[in-house]
Amino acid sequence: MAQPSVLTPQSDDFPRWYQDVVQKAEMADNGPVRGTMVIRPYGYAIWERIQRELDDRIKAAGAQNAYFPLFIPESYLHREAEHVEGFSPELAVVTHAGGDELAEPIVVRPTSETVIVEFMAKWIQSHRDLPLLLNQWANVVRWELRPRLFLRSSEFLWQEGHTAHASAEDASRYATLIHLEVYNDFLEQVLAVPTIVGIKPKSERFAGAVNTMTCEGMMRDGKALQLATSHELGQNFARAFNIVFQGDDGVSQHCHTTSWGASTRLVGGLIMSHGDDRGLRIPPRLAPWQVVVIAVRDDDEVTHGAREVARELLEAGVRSHLDSGRGSFGRRVTDWEIKGVPLRVEVGPRDLASGHITLVRRDSGEKITVERGEFVGRAREILDEMHDAFYADALAFRESRTTSVTSVDDALVAAQHGFARLDWDLVDEAAEARLKAEAVTVRCLVRRDGTLPQHEEEPNLVAYVAKSY
Amino acid sequence: MAQPSVLTPQSDDFPRWYQDVVQKAEMADNGPVRGTMVIRPYGYAIWERIQRELDDRIKAAGAQNAYFPLFIPESYLHREAEHVEGFSPELAVVTHAGGDELAEPIVVRPTSETVIVEFMAKWIQSHRDLPLLLNQWANVVRWELRPRLFLRSSEFLWQEGHTAHASAEDASRYATLIHLEVYNDFLEQVLAVPTIVGIKPKSERFAGAVNTMTCEGMMRDGKALQLATSHELGQNFARAFNIVFQGDDGVSQHCHTTSWGASTRLVGGLIMSHGDDRGLRIPPRLAPWQVVVIAVRDDDEVTHGAREVARELLEAGVRSHLDSGRGSFGRRVTDWEIKGVPLRVEVGPRDLASGHITLVRRDSGEKITVERGEFVGRAREILDEMHDAFYADALAFRESRTTSVTSVDDALVAAQHGFARLDWDLVDEAAEARLKAEAVTVRCLVRRDGTLPQHEEEPNLVAYVAKSY
Repeated sequence: MAQPSVLTPQSDDFPRWYQDVVQKAEMADNGPVRGTMVIRPYGYAIWERIQRELDDRIKAAGAQNAYFPLFIPESYLHREAEHVEGFSPELAVVTHAGGDELAEPIVVRPTSETVIVEFMAKWIQSHRDLPLLLNQWANVVRWELRPRLFLRSSEFLWQEGHTAHASAEDASRYATLIHLEVYNDFLEQVLAVPTIVGIKPKSERFAGAVNTMTCEGMMRDGKALQLATSHELGQNFARAFNIVFQGDDGVSQHCHTTSWGASTRLVGGLIMSHGDDRGLRIPPRLAPWQVVVIAVRDDDEVTHGAREVARELLEAGVRSHLDSGRGSFGRRVTDWEIKGVPLRVEVGPRDLASGHITLVRRDSGEKITVERGEFVGRAREILDEMHDAFYADALAFRESRTTSVTSVDDALVAAQHGFARLDWDLVDEAAEARLKAEAVTVRCLVRRDGTLPQHEEEPNLVAYVAKSY
Repeated sequence: MAQPSVLTPQSDDFPRWYQDVVQKAEMADNGPVRGTMVIRPYGYAIWERIQRELDDRIKAAGAQNAYFPLFIPESYLHREAEHVEGFSPELAVVTHAGGDELAEPIVVRPTSETVIVEFMAKWIQSHRDLPLLLNQWANVVRWELRPRLFLRSSEFLWQEGHTAHASAEDASRYATLIHLEVYNDFLEQVLAVPTIVGIKPKSERFAGAVNTMTCEGMMRDGKALQLATSHELGQNFARAFNIVFQGDDGVSQHCHTTSWGASTRLVGGLIMSHGDDRGLRIPPRLAPWQVVVIAVRDDDEVTHGAREVARELLEAGVRSHLDSGRGSFGRRVTDWEIKGVPLRVEVGPRDLASGHITLVRRDSGEKITVERGEFVGRAREILDEMHDAFYADALAFRESRTTSVTSVDDALVAAQHGFARLDWDLVDEAAEARLKAEAVTVRCLVRRDGTLPQHEEEPNLVAYVAKSY
């Protein structure tokens, strides 16, 4: 008989299900200061895996990591007018330090744009210093009145890339490279999340950007989540902070800059893209632990047998974890299901005697019994297959919830349970306002063939319209 | 003819030499807010190597990474009286956020002790939850009036470990394990820095600690630098934050906690432990780039040859970097010397024709010519040998600057150029005050056989006395 779920079912109350998963999978807690977040070891292990995968790709794209200060003089934020308008109400301000009131208030970075471009201006002299490709892993603060763990927190962790180029073409080429080869490759190949890769309409762009690319994923409640964004900033920041270089011809000109970021929000996206009523489901390439080996009970023979299994997996490069057998077996199985470990191996006296091992897939629940001598190889094969299954499942779900429509009215109806797809020509300013009044936005614009447009004035663009996080 | 050094010689003005190295090796810059630091890509690559090496050891010691908030309610810091006294004048305080004045001011963490123990109290119920072994990589803020890059900055990066245990013995055992197997092993085996591993006298202990262990290194000016510390906190924090567990016998009792940290200060320690008048010297196990392959000039044949050499090294697991040949050769060699890359390979037309490769050691300046077919293997051997040479060199320097003395007067004299070693029995409260008046402190106490004491009341302890950073 199936045990009653310890989680609120998704169909009953999706936000409550999300909260339950975050808590019961021991992912995160609310911090003592409103809107802040304590990331618990299991949640942080997932973030470390995300960091490693993104960081390897960022370095392969030629960017170098650096670290810029947490504190920014308030005056910096006024130099780029649109930028400060975008952030003012979200800022946390330090007014006292070292026992005294400060002469100039200091802002806790909401992003490092301004301070990084200030230093780019110092470091760049000639075209030989270009492109300058920097990335930073850091915490940033944007005050949140309605915080939600991982999705919207007053402090969050992210990477922010900032680059300077000699031409608009080179800036555009690099931002696109990052968007496709770093973000989208990670999302599809590791997070197993199918994305809509498009550009933001002007109304939804980052303050100061001339073009913003986005990867939009569909969550299990049909809403959109922006998983990563890449901005071409034109010469806006270069003019405000005077980043100039001397070209081949000796003439000084302003650089073209880009910025691009992804955050701990990705952990929220992971939970809502793949989770089910039994908890998290972590795709195998991302999982901190790909296989949990559960000793059915706490006796020497069983624990020893389970330890052997876990060790063999580790030696074959499979991230395995041993649950050595204390406490109720049923409870432990439930807990590992909530934590979403892709494969479970249960080791009991009968398994040890039989010379067989039973693997249980977290995605489908399927049980696969294999010979002891073959199980490590089979476990690796199954993990490989599971990645594709996760992706296919998420894609099928998205397609089942995506409706092609021919009017803004129909888009509003379709957006109640998923994505609406309609001609961008049909969405004028008034239509955007109508959508927004119903908490529906244009998530992004793509070409009819699914490729990334250069700008929103291109003919024949399609808009994806949805509710979102 | 030797070129004039681009750096101030160490013997002329050591602090100025340090500043020159930090700037010319492109390690760091001052941030716009007083005391903050911009860590440039080369400095950050070194920090990433330090992080990776420490993190691997921390995980092997069983601790798990987590993340706690940047912001701490001011009231938390008042719960442990000694603790707040230690930090008050250094705090940065947020009074405004989200456009409003806050009801309770928020402190930017000077350490996460208080918030972590608050959550430990929530997570720990029974003895089965112990030990709880947590670590965090984060930025912290302690306002500095006399900042120095890497050594004392208002914001710095660090890891802070925090653990809770069922008994004082287990807490002590674990703190010692971390101190020896994480910190000291890293310092000796990777940073190639010989250390004095001892305990702090009571007067130099971390606020709230019952025992503090330290690793002290000697810098090239004879001063001491505390490279890492590990604290046994007894039940002080457990009582203030009510961390209790139910023992086997059903009786509730307070946990025993520890904390331990190492920071970006280690980068300063690296510079001052190994640097010489030509710049940084980075020990090979730490170096982000172990070999730089310099194309003598920018033509296709030479660049191609140099690229092949760099590629072969990378394939053999040697971290190599290609300098592809633009700009003055002499200037580039000087720059790589300043950056302290352990081995340099110069590739020119003659090398390519001769079938030989010349390796230049950064530590000794020695040139080693090897056959093309054998050079990768030889490079690896030389890098191995260099680690020992770095360590031996630093140890010989320390020994040449360490004097065994029999009075506080003699200790004061010896501490002008290095470490003084004297019986701890000779240092009473008045003697400590006399030393302090001359900016000399007891760095740590060790047993006569060099091992770590349990507490300062043990008989036959030896005190190391020095000026310090």
